Amino acid sequence: MSAAGQFVLTLSCPDRAGIVAAVSNHLAANQCNIVEAQQFGDAETGRFFMRLVFESTQHGPEALRTGLDGFAPSLKMQWTLRDRSQRRRVMLLVSKFDHCLADTLYRWRIGELPMDIVGVVANHPIETYRHLDFDGIPFHYLPVDRDSKVQQEAQLWSLIEQSGAELVVLARYMQVLSSELADRLAGRCINIHHSFLPGFKGARPYHQAHRRGVKLIGATAHFVTTDLDEGPIIEQDIERVTHADTPDDLIRIGRDIERRVLARTLRLYLDDRVLLNGSKTVVFHS
Amino acid sequence: MSAAGQFVLTLSCPDRAGIVAAVSNHLAANQCNIVEAQQFGDAETGRFFMRLVFESTQHGPEALRTGLDGFAPSLKMQWTLRDRSQRRRVMLLVSKFDHCLADTLYRWRIGELPMDIVGVVANHPIETYRHLDFDGIPFHYLPVDRDSKVQQEAQLWSLIEQSGAELVVLARYMQVLSSELADRLAGRCINIHHSFLPGFKGARPYHQAHRRGVKLIGATAHFVTTDLDEGPIIEQDIERVTHADTPDDLIRIGRDIERRVLARTLRLYLDDRVLLNGSKTVVFHS
Amino acid sequence: MSAAGQFVLTLSCPDRAGIVAAVSNHLAANQCNIVEAQQFGDAETGRFFMRLVFESTQHGPEALRTGLDGFAPSLKMQWTLRDRSQRRRVMLLVSKFDHCLADTLYRWRIGELPMDIVGVVANHPIETYRHLDFDGIPFHYLPVDRDSKVQQEAQLWSLIEQSGAELVVLARYMQVLSSELADRLAGRCINIHHSFLPGFKGARPYHQAHRRGVKLIGATAHFVTTDLDEGPIIEQDIERVTHADTPDDLIRIGRDIERRVLARTLRLYLDDRVLLNGSKTVVFHS
Amino acid sequence: MSAAGQFVLTLSCPDRAGIVAAVSNHLAANQCNIVEAQQFGDAETGRFFMRLVFESTQHGPEALRTGLDGFAPSLKMQWTLRDRSQRRRVMLLVSKFDHCLADTLYRWRIGELPMDIVGVVANHPIETYRHLDFDGIPFHYLPVDRDSKVQQEAQLWSLIEQSGAELVVLARYMQVLSSELADRLAGRCINIHHSFLPGFKGARPYHQAHRRGVKLIGATAHFVTTDLDEGPIIEQDIERVTHADTPDDLIRIGRDIERRVLARTLRLYLDDRVLLNGSKTVVFHS
Repeated sequence: MSAAGQFVLTLSCPDRAGIVAAVSNHLAANQCNIVEAQQFGDAETGRFFMRLVFESTQHGPEALRTGLDGFAPSLKMQWTLRDRSQRRRVMLLVSKFDHCLADTLYRWRIGELPMDIVGVVANHPIETYRHLDFDGIPFHYLPVDRDSKVQQEAQLWSLIEQSGAELVVLARYMQVLSSELADRLAGRCINIHHSFLPGFKGARPYHQAHRRGVKLIGATAHFVTTDLDEGPIIEQDIERVTHADTPDDLIRIGRDIERRVLARTLRLYLDDRVLLNGSKTVVFHS
Repeated sequence: MSAAGQFVLTLSCPDRAGIVAAVSNHLAANQCNIVEAQQFGDAETGRFFMRLVFESTQHGPEALRTGLDGFAPSLKMQWTLRDRSQRRRVMLLVSKFDHCLADTLYRWRIGELPMDIVGVVANHPIETYRHLDFDGIPFHYLPVDRDSKVQQEAQLWSLIEQSGAELVVLARYMQVLSSELADRLAGRCINIHHSFLPGFKGARPYHQAHRRGVKLIGATAHFVTTDLDEGPIIEQDIERVTHADTPDDLIRIGRDIERRVLARTLRLYLDDRVLLNGSKTVVFHS
Repeated sequence: MSAAGQFVLTLSCPDRAGIVAAVSNHLAANQCNIVEAQQFGDAETGRFFMRLVFESTQHGPEALRTGLDGFAPSLKMQWTLRDRSQRRRVMLLVSKFDHCLADTLYRWRIGELPMDIVGVVANHPIETYRHLDFDGIPFHYLPVDRDSKVQQEAQLWSLIEQSGAELVVLARYMQVLSSELADRLAGRCINIHHSFLPGFKGARPYHQAHRRGVKLIGATAHFVTTDLDEGPIIEQDIERVTHADTPDDLIRIGRDIERRVLARTLRLYLDDRVLLNGSKTVVFHS
Repeated sequence: MSAAGQFVLTLSCPDRAGIVAAVSNHLAANQCNIVEAQQFGDAETGRFFMRLVFESTQHGPEALRTGLDGFAPSLKMQWTLRDRSQRRRVMLLVSKFDHCLADTLYRWRIGELPMDIVGVVANHPIETYRHLDFDGIPFHYLPVDRDSKVQQEAQLWSLIEQSGAELVVLARYMQVLSSELADRLAGRCINIHHSFLPGFKGARPYHQAHRRGVKLIGATAHFVTTDLDEGPIIEQDIERVTHADTPDDLIRIGRDIERRVLARTLRLYLDDRVLLNGSKTVVFHS
């Protein structure tokens, strides 16, 4: 008998009776043992979401896929099925500040983030990151200004396609993606914004926060959409600040928030725990 | 057609393939629609835990019970099934400090805690709580000292039985239950301890914390067992303190932690989200 | 020798060398022993803030006041001096939801909030709060609608004046004060807003938060100004929420945040720890 | 006139009237402008603590030292005076797990931690840390086992002396210092312990925490004393965990807590904000 493999199934569809039974029957009929299951019915939109982790010794994912293809249409169900042993391919984009990049590389190196980093794209030259060990990850320097933006995004898209990147992470990449690129990457491009959205959208959020005199600052990881800083929120966190903290202090404290929010978001995403629900997300925590 | 009723099923059993399918099939066969499901397999003990919320228009819980009785033995499954519209009967025990009692009464009154309070038992007279509106809840003054403890606990047990209390809450009740009573109430008696267990067991934990110079203090809700302050932990929380905080400050700050930890614990318990797992708990958060 | 009295001195003035020495000399010359001191120089505005707690056995505050009057003008210093044993007079305003009111009354009763509550004003009749024990605090029912607003605020102002209220607390009072009244109460009227400002200003913030799909919700205590929800922020806090939380869940979770943020704010204010700094605050934590 | 320099003065002495005035007078007499001041009187021990930041254009620290030497004895005052532009010399000790080391190096590199790292000492060879850029910091491999401990500590002490290290940081250095070395480094050796002390002292605290079923785990930075895990606590923090988290999950989550607690502790220490108060600390937050 072959060794057990673990698979993750996510699905969403209009809510109705019998979905859980239909899916769990299908898995049971294929000798799959469910080891984790979470579900959510959105009473407002009438939409149902589910995430299942199961073990299978008998069948590969293809047999399961065929079965799912069979009954998914009748349930108007969208689904994904992933072999948990297959790592997602991820591309990291970065600008001058490299704390999120450095932190992501470190966590990836020690095994906290099960992914293959297929490339790092920066609009600053590699010397900017000379203290980081890229460990053989391809580095691409794609400078950009107003005139070269279309061309640079074409290069970027080409790198994404060639590398087979399934997820693009704006790890403090300080360029606004064009609507075209944002659309193309819908649902698979994550940004870490350095404010507690929806507060302080736009530029220099820590300076905005300092001016307003808030007592907590935050960071927000969200899917990138064409509407800047309005994408579905995946994760947020905050830290306490005081009147004595300068904008530079907020930036420093914010670095810690940004990198841990991004790290949590990546772990959630890589474990298929983040599902899109219109302009919001369903996040199945463990 | 009768109106839909919601039911909560919790179960635990040795882990094996097919449990989820068996249960969800049984529910589907009885025209029940699962609206919430959570599960956990404890890899260390090989034990499986599940909580399901379902809607049923066709069958009362008795039909379901019969079916569950049928296949539960073969799975060595323990289970509970509750009509969500039926409120749990709860008895509150309190000593001199009434912040947990006052808070619980307030939350109950405005509908945050779906339960019937069948009695308040105190080892201080009712004048101690003269600012509280008991709203018709029976109040029992059961003073206790070393000599009268056996007799007082007999009275207490009698009140629990007569009132049909399903849950007993030690809302800062500063008497240690005898092993006999703790055993009798196993799994249905919750205490709020005023420290971040396992730190500072025993008496005067805030004074202990002050002496040790900790920078965070906490509170812990746990099931009462015969082993003092060692019962399965359900919920904990903390607050930051400084060198400038006196023991009295810690007590004050602690009051806030205690009452919110107890309130969260009650909500979790009343919604059948807390399952015993040996000396630990499984807590299915929403 | 007379018993020691404790006094709190707060001051703000343009920053320059020698302020601390001038003030501490003055206190030392008057046989006052400084037991707590905090200061802040705002590098942006060039303004200096200080809070001192001192003990005096020899002089009453009047002698100190005279001395401060003497050198304050040369430093362009604004200052307050309060005998710590004299409780502030506070008026509470409330609408239908009474969780902040109930909590404030409880904390006041057990001695957490050293203040005299000189009245409760509500735009709902006293029956709304029938479970609360007002303990002799005058209750004033001042209903209000669009037509009666001017008249109602006149009554309110009259109550504030007659009662000698030094602080007015909008404890979930759901009426917007007129610019005139907000101006009159500048620096001594605190509101608890049920969102993490500057996010979700205006009406129904928890519904706004639910619609945006945030993962944290918050509450904000701020001074009331003529610019709605833009007053200087004193204190904020948050709680984590999930996709499964409905607007009603957010409202419930928010109640806990609101009441603890308001309680902290009151303690800070009553201990002269909150100083105005233009559109921001300086908050000297212990 | 020479450019302004900033100095930090810390002091502790038996509490009595006039200390603040004496010190601030001395500074004023030397044309020093106090820009930050914090104090604490420990009512239990009768001890007084103070931290002052001041600017001086006229005098170097030597003139001030002479003055302080003059009146310190009469107040039984211990004091330190540091030119803020002079960075502390710090030695980092590490074992196999390098997350605290990597994080400290990163923060030091980008300017978050104003210190000179005079050496890294490890009981594992440099290859263990091959992904880290030591940037010219001397690396010392000092392996240790039971037989070689005395000799290894002699080498370690020699390195501390030769490098002029003022602070020694056990950045997840998994060796217990001998009492002799702990004594020698009293007040200038900081350890990061991977539990929320006083819970889970000793070995494998995350496994202990998992076994106990706690709902929060933590980390603690403390001064090293001869009494293991009993040294004065400087800073602590926690994260929420659930029944589903394995010991490995706790270790992963703990890494984040450990490194941020250590980083905060270093910033506090390097800014002279941490004062010893017997078996406790006074920590003057900004």
